[in-house]
Amino acid sequence: MDEKKLYDYNIDETFDLFLLIKSAIVRVAKNGKKFIAFTFQDKSGQMDGKYWDANEADIEKYQGGTVVKVSGKRELYQGNPQIRLFHMRLTNAGEPDKAEQFIEKAPIKKEDMMEEINETVFEITNANWNRIVRYLLNKYQKEYFQAPAAKRFHHAFYGGLAFHTVSMLRLAKSITAQYEEIDHSLLYAGVILHDLGKVMELTGPVSTEYTLEGNLVGHIVLVDEEITKACQALKINDKIEDVTLLKHMILAHHGKLDFGSPVVPKLREAEILYHIDHLDATINMLNNTLNRTEPGTFSERIFGLDNRSFYKPNTNRLSNEKEEESDTLF
Amino acid sequence: MDEKKLYDYNIDETFDLFLLIKSAIVRVAKNGKKFIAFTFQDKSGQMDGKYWDANEADIEKYQGGTVVKVSGKRELYQGNPQIRLFHMRLTNAGEPDKAEQFIEKAPIKKEDMMEEINETVFEITNANWNRIVRYLLNKYQKEYFQAPAAKRFHHAFYGGLAFHTVSMLRLAKSITAQYEEIDHSLLYAGVILHDLGKVMELTGPVSTEYTLEGNLVGHIVLVDEEITKACQALKINDKIEDVTLLKHMILAHHGKLDFGSPVVPKLREAEILYHIDHLDATINMLNNTLNRTEPGTFSERIFGLDNRSFYKPNTNRLSNEKEEESDTLF
Amino acid sequence: MDEKKLYDYNIDETFDLFLLIKSAIVRVAKNGKKFIAFTFQDKSGQMDGKYWDANEADIEKYQGGTVVKVSGKRELYQGNPQIRLFHMRLTNAGEPDKAEQFIEKAPIKKEDMMEEINETVFEITNANWNRIVRYLLNKYQKEYFQAPAAKRFHHAFYGGLAFHTVSMLRLAKSITAQYEEIDHSLLYAGVILHDLGKVMELTGPVSTEYTLEGNLVGHIVLVDEEITKACQALKINDKIEDVTLLKHMILAHHGKLDFGSPVVPKLREAEILYHIDHLDATINMLNNTLNRTEPGTFSERIFGLDNRSFYKPNTNRLSNEKEEESDTLF
Amino acid sequence: MDEKKLYDYNIDETFDLFLLIKSAIVRVAKNGKKFIAFTFQDKSGQMDGKYWDANEADIEKYQGGTVVKVSGKRELYQGNPQIRLFHMRLTNAGEPDKAEQFIEKAPIKKEDMMEEINETVFEITNANWNRIVRYLLNKYQKEYFQAPAAKRFHHAFYGGLAFHTVSMLRLAKSITAQYEEIDHSLLYAGVILHDLGKVMELTGPVSTEYTLEGNLVGHIVLVDEEITKACQALKINDKIEDVTLLKHMILAHHGKLDFGSPVVPKLREAEILYHIDHLDATINMLNNTLNRTEPGTFSERIFGLDNRSFYKPNTNRLSNEKEEESDTLF
Amino acid sequence: MDEKKLYDYNIDETFDLFLLIKSAIVRVAKNGKKFIAFTFQDKSGQMDGKYWDANEADIEKYQGGTVVKVSGKRELYQGNPQIRLFHMRLTNAGEPDKAEQFIEKAPIKKEDMMEEINETVFEITNANWNRIVRYLLNKYQKEYFQAPAAKRFHHAFYGGLAFHTVSMLRLAKSITAQYEEIDHSLLYAGVILHDLGKVMELTGPVSTEYTLEGNLVGHIVLVDEEITKACQALKINDKIEDVTLLKHMILAHHGKLDFGSPVVPKLREAEILYHIDHLDATINMLNNTLNRTEPGTFSERIFGLDNRSFYKPNTNRLSNEKEEESDTLF
Amino acid sequence: MDEKKLYDYNIDETFDLFLLIKSAIVRVAKNGKKFIAFTFQDKSGQMDGKYWDANEADIEKYQGGTVVKVSGKRELYQGNPQIRLFHMRLTNAGEPDKAEQFIEKAPIKKEDMMEEINETVFEITNANWNRIVRYLLNKYQKEYFQAPAAKRFHHAFYGGLAFHTVSMLRLAKSITAQYEEIDHSLLYAGVILHDLGKVMELTGPVSTEYTLEGNLVGHIVLVDEEITKACQALKINDKIEDVTLLKHMILAHHGKLDFGSPVVPKLREAEILYHIDHLDATINMLNNTLNRTEPGTFSERIFGLDNRSFYKPNTNRLSNEKEEESDTLF
Repeated sequence: MDEKKLYDYNIDETFDLFLLIKSAIVRVAKNGKKFIAFTFQDKSGQMDGKYWDANEADIEKYQGGTVVKVSGKRELYQGNPQIRLFHMRLTNAGEPDKAEQFIEKAPIKKEDMMEEINETVFEITNANWNRIVRYLLNKYQKEYFQAPAAKRFHHAFYGGLAFHTVSMLRLAKSITAQYEEIDHSLLYAGVILHDLGKVMELTGPVSTEYTLEGNLVGHIVLVDEEITKACQALKINDKIEDVTLLKHMILAHHGKLDFGSPVVPKLREAEILYHIDHLDATINMLNNTLNRTEPGTFSERIFGLDNRSFYKPNTNRLSNEKEEESDTLF
Repeated sequence: MDEKKLYDYNIDETFDLFLLIKSAIVRVAKNGKKFIAFTFQDKSGQMDGKYWDANEADIEKYQGGTVVKVSGKRELYQGNPQIRLFHMRLTNAGEPDKAEQFIEKAPIKKEDMMEEINETVFEITNANWNRIVRYLLNKYQKEYFQAPAAKRFHHAFYGGLAFHTVSMLRLAKSITAQYEEIDHSLLYAGVILHDLGKVMELTGPVSTEYTLEGNLVGHIVLVDEEITKACQALKINDKIEDVTLLKHMILAHHGKLDFGSPVVPKLREAEILYHIDHLDATINMLNNTLNRTEPGTFSERIFGLDNRSFYKPNTNRLSNEKEEESDTLF
Repeated sequence: MDEKKLYDYNIDETFDLFLLIKSAIVRVAKNGKKFIAFTFQDKSGQMDGKYWDANEADIEKYQGGTVVKVSGKRELYQGNPQIRLFHMRLTNAGEPDKAEQFIEKAPIKKEDMMEEINETVFEITNANWNRIVRYLLNKYQKEYFQAPAAKRFHHAFYGGLAFHTVSMLRLAKSITAQYEEIDHSLLYAGVILHDLGKVMELTGPVSTEYTLEGNLVGHIVLVDEEITKACQALKINDKIEDVTLLKHMILAHHGKLDFGSPVVPKLREAEILYHIDHLDATINMLNNTLNRTEPGTFSERIFGLDNRSFYKPNTNRLSNEKEEESDTLF
Repeated sequence: MDEKKLYDYNIDETFDLFLLIKSAIVRVAKNGKKFIAFTFQDKSGQMDGKYWDANEADIEKYQGGTVVKVSGKRELYQGNPQIRLFHMRLTNAGEPDKAEQFIEKAPIKKEDMMEEINETVFEITNANWNRIVRYLLNKYQKEYFQAPAAKRFHHAFYGGLAFHTVSMLRLAKSITAQYEEIDHSLLYAGVILHDLGKVMELTGPVSTEYTLEGNLVGHIVLVDEEITKACQALKINDKIEDVTLLKHMILAHHGKLDFGSPVVPKLREAEILYHIDHLDATINMLNNTLNRTEPGTFSERIFGLDNRSFYKPNTNRLSNEKEEESDTLF
Repeated sequence: MDEKKLYDYNIDETFDLFLLIKSAIVRVAKNGKKFIAFTFQDKSGQMDGKYWDANEADIEKYQGGTVVKVSGKRELYQGNPQIRLFHMRLTNAGEPDKAEQFIEKAPIKKEDMMEEINETVFEITNANWNRIVRYLLNKYQKEYFQAPAAKRFHHAFYGGLAFHTVSMLRLAKSITAQYEEIDHSLLYAGVILHDLGKVMELTGPVSTEYTLEGNLVGHIVLVDEEITKACQALKINDKIEDVTLLKHMILAHHGKLDFGSPVVPKLREAEILYHIDHLDATINMLNNTLNRTEPGTFSERIFGLDNRSFYKPNTNRLSNEKEEESDTLF
Repeated sequence: MDEKKLYDYNIDETFDLFLLIKSAIVRVAKNGKKFIAFTFQDKSGQMDGKYWDANEADIEKYQGGTVVKVSGKRELYQGNPQIRLFHMRLTNAGEPDKAEQFIEKAPIKKEDMMEEINETVFEITNANWNRIVRYLLNKYQKEYFQAPAAKRFHHAFYGGLAFHTVSMLRLAKSITAQYEEIDHSLLYAGVILHDLGKVMELTGPVSTEYTLEGNLVGHIVLVDEEITKACQALKINDKIEDVTLLKHMILAHHGKLDFGSPVVPKLREAEILYHIDHLDATINMLNNTLNRTEPGTFSERIFGLDNRSFYKPNTNRLSNEKEEESDTLF
């Protein structure tokens, strides 16, 4: 197996790679024949490619979640990377065939994320919040560290939910250190649980889709239900203020009714949670996109940021070396 | 005790009545002295009145929920009815002093509403929905038939929640009779449970206020939690489609994210539930307001209807007698 | 002639059918050659099909409103039904060639709709409204029972306007029976006339398009003009309150300025007319779409319902049989 | 009778004047007594004043539309001019008592406006439009030159409708002279008729209120009805394109659905009519307000201009004398 | 060289012409091969055409700004004019090859526009405004008379900025003549400078694109910077009211925050400038589009006018001859 | 002089204090007499109080910015603190009379803020940004450390601008430490300069009002002008990318056109600057308000946060002590 990954190849370079089919959509071309619009992926990222004149057997064989051997050429189509397919087949025995081997993962190891979350739970000094957070992390331990944080927009990879959470916890800790009035226990508990419902809303990190309850109930209310059940299991009266506050953190974390929260933030910590969530998702989308943009040009439009296109400056200004000649200002 | 009620008196007529203080707000007048802005009520309705130069003892005595004996005159202030207070005192032993005796009630007897809802439950032929509806009606039987449907806008009276529900069930039955594709079991279950959370969101029919969980969680999600707990009590798997559909009915019943639903309707029956709820509330607000409007004039503005003012036609066109001379048209 | 209709064929089944060309749009393919994007229809519904490499003679022959004999195969294209065309010709003498024979019709017979509307007119006890309604129904009797209620969204078929009206009258009657304060004469007159302008706004039930006055004046104002002319013909003073109220019913029936009403509803009956119209159109769109959706899947997006996709539940819950074991609840 | 008018007096100067009561609203003061909030006017403008401790006889006597003799002082209240009332009485025989003598009028004489409109009608070379315009100007000749153009916002004075029309015609002529593609006949006909409905929508120039048909039908549709009736009287087929175009000019002249037009402009001339109307109303509101603003300060907020406050520059820059030293630029 | 221009050819007529490539976008067809989507232009206008099966040499040769010799046929594609390409080559020595020879130009000669602007500058009697306007017109004299007023929407041609300015000045003069309260010096200075920033925001009249500072700073603020620099060069204190007023004219000229102005108009003249700009751009877009529309049909949708489609009336009503028989109206 | 400050007194306690008149607005009471609505302040905060029956001498004497000796009582009016005035006089010689002694100040010393900003400037390693930032901080050194950050909403106190900046720099440093792709030089330069224009937009920390250029140009564009002038002074070409990027940071920092930015963020660092600014202002408003709210109640509405009311939880959950019994989670 070739050690080079998909995005290691240059434009117009040919390759011969094992790739995971992330999605396969059958369409009909203007000439009346069917073709398959593939999205392939390996750990270096995702790339589209079209398979022309597909017959029924092809359609049957090459479905989302399948690993295939692909010969092709990396091209540029309307400014986006694309695969020109030469040949494609299913894998043989002995060849890599596990979807998990091909999907992007969080840039931090699962064990490190677990430890970082674990340490934070110790800082949740309110007993009710501490117990509910522990209970739910235990209940969904496996899924929590596998799930993506979204189907598409941000942190849409294996472990994305946990990575998004860890990243938000770091922001939360900077903020509580700076503004001492904030109830850090409530904020950390809110951060850890706010997107737990993604575990139920989405089908998982491979070929991610919405589940029925994801569609009809939504991840926000699904967490509220989990807190309700946790209280029953832990014999915590779910009508006490502690529980109401924690539920509000999750319910209000989209910040506005229009964004799907059934209530707007009415707690200082709920308002801050909304900001942190928004900020981390924004930076993740910006970095993902600008990493694929040439310096001195504008990026593709980012759907999650009002469809704006961002400019990547020309020269590397990130020298991070001290300017020697500058004097004290005041 | 006088048998005439507050709204039986004409403008500029004096009266001597037992009234319930619905709310009492202390303010400071331009002259620096305190006054109490009262809202009084009896079964005929509510009316405001100001108590000038209030001392601390007055403020202590005359609080929301108290029954008082009031001498005064009915006046008109900027087009709204108002009480000019002459004298006021607490009740003596033997005089009426129960808040319940003074508040507006649903125009149908509790027993009749119970029977009508009961009969409808029989028509919910899906076993899961039937069991959940029964369980929750039993659990909240007392509060369900006392609670108002809102703090202010529509059906804001004792038994208002149940009356609103019964009225919506009648609409729902007309509609399912007319459009046979509708799943009537799902629609009826949705109607019965959709506002059950008002029982927890509001403090009750006297001096109605929002509770903390009403404010921070809201009546929509509170019903979802109740369904979650009902499933646990009834040992119904809360991940089956039946339960997801029923939860969606409640969660989507405000119709739009902007109106506080965390998900928009994605089931035919959920969309219809939203329409029925909106229609019954609208007619209730219109009737309440137009009952207080003179023919040939425009009503006061109705907050719940985009602050519109409605015209009450001049002559009584509701003769409901057949026109004799008309011939068959086609 | 084959008795099976277009939608009686299964996917991938071939057929040989007389069909009506509903619309024929000429486009240019990527290869620079022209093709015709057809929409065919018979009474079972509409289906698209592309005619490749069309020459000028083809374009001339195969225009909207023409009946043709089509050999083809029913296929599925991106989830939507589609015709793969094999052969196509004009009809010969003796073969069916009337557009009317191929278009969808209201599910109720014209005579039954006429009778139902006729009976309702008897219930309009206000003489002025009664006379205006009769006059206009007589004037447009033929068109009223042919016109569709819309070009696309709802009740877009032969007799759709009348069927939509009858359906709304049934809702109106349920509602007036339930809420007695409503002036039923005004509401029924409003229902019958509200969309009469479709008769002028649209070109008719075959190859429906907007007329110039449909575009520049619109069906709402067109009805207002008709009432104005009816008053002149009937020698009714068009400045009396009766006439103003009736005109308002029609002018306000879209409910909001944004939806094209020049005034918002300011009469109870006008507000209710808006709700009834909206509800009947909504249910019609939902039923049309869900009839074409597989159980357990989401429908195509419905443009007239904020582009939402609706879920069709998996199992048949419409058993409508009584549950035997349930006890009285209260 | 004093020849000085209300606005000729300085702040803190006392006066003794005949004034017209434009409106008289009865309110109740904090001390429980009634007062009348008057708006007085003479030809110099309008000013508010409060009449404290009003008894029923006062309320009866001093109603909108009555001329009174007022002794008072001009004051400034929260930046707005106000009358401090000393004494007030009804007029005696022989004293001025006609409302018309006290209301603001258009700054052009009625005869000059008639002549200017008359000349413009000659330029409407399309026979149908010419005849309809003539017919309606004749029909409403008297009211057209008396009516205000609005209840409050702009041109709210005797003859305001005609003056607004004349002012717009001047703009229209500049524009048609500059852009030759415009159909000037259509534009002029549209300008002359666009606000004719104000004649029916409002009660007239004294104590202006909305009529019932103003409220329920609105001035836009009222003109459409008048065109419909004019066609009948003139035996013009109201289905020909000429008539549809003219009706569209009026129906679309508010420019957006949100502003109460039932259709948006779909003719070049309709779009331009909207701009001209908007521009003339804007300049009128700006001039009215800035005439009352001190140089170097911000004006009161203008409701009709998004509640904005405008700055009146400090020094007089309107010298309009040529700068002597400037050379030719290019 | 053929003297006929592109738009002089009829549909389906073949031609052999020198044309300028305005833009050339490389795409990949469904068959996997690249093609170039060209926009060609000469002084008669712009037309699209596709070049199939383009190889790398073609892509290299045929870029935006290049003049080419084209053999082709004018066609109609979905209602829009289009070129069917037969053959295409670069120009030879001696053949026309200057982009400037092929681009649309303002319909007024540069010298006439200069003179008209020059004369207007004399009417700016405020010395500070006069000097700033002169300074900036001198500084950008060349670019000011070349630049387009926009990339696409209106006045998108060589000299478009100056022509748009001249056209607005004519409107401004009509308006100041009619409403005498307006400070004409301020208005004219505002008109002349309002879009000067287009000179920096756009790359120029050939293959117009946004510059980096056009994208990140925008033409509105760029003018403000130029005024700041002009004040420094002319030693005018940029904190005096004169300068603040002039800067406000430019900053507020888009009329609303949503349209990119950092402040809303707070001067009478700024509000009027916004109207004039909007009106001239609107008429320009309408005329451009309706010139290409057949009488009796609706135009293509105009992006800059809320995507509306406009109707071009059937018959020529622009006779501009006096109607003989009409009498004086009043 | 009393060492106790205004907010050290309890409700209903009397006091005798030197206070600064922050603002004094003259109004007319219902009885026709004038009164002055004062806002007083000392370092503990601001409180309103009304001065009844004010004569012209009082109005003359007691204006904004004056220090006075006040005898009064602290009261509660509609939930807000208020002063009941007994007596009031100007200060005598030898008594405190400097406004600066009475206004709220940033909670960090000026010298510490200077040092913190100074150190950050060293980290701006891009020479152009470093020089521009230094130049402008030097130019406005005095005002920068006195100015408030707003007239009302957040950081509305002496030194508020600098404190807001320092607080944002701390957030910026946490974020650049966490997300390494961010250009920290650009972000820090943007933070330091983003609100520098407040120095010109507002009149200063005492009796803060908008200046004319604050109103007509606004603080965003005022900074852009300062960068333009700084480039001229420093002989930096203001057309290079470095300068364009820095200008964009300031211009885009309100995040949306609707919020007054003439361009939306199109640089990663500009988007982040918007988030940091929004977050710091939000926390400042929340803390200010919740500091004045009783535990277990809802706060007053916060204008700058969509007029929302926030709940202050009942019990002190900010124990910040480790929970002893909790075990490691994973």
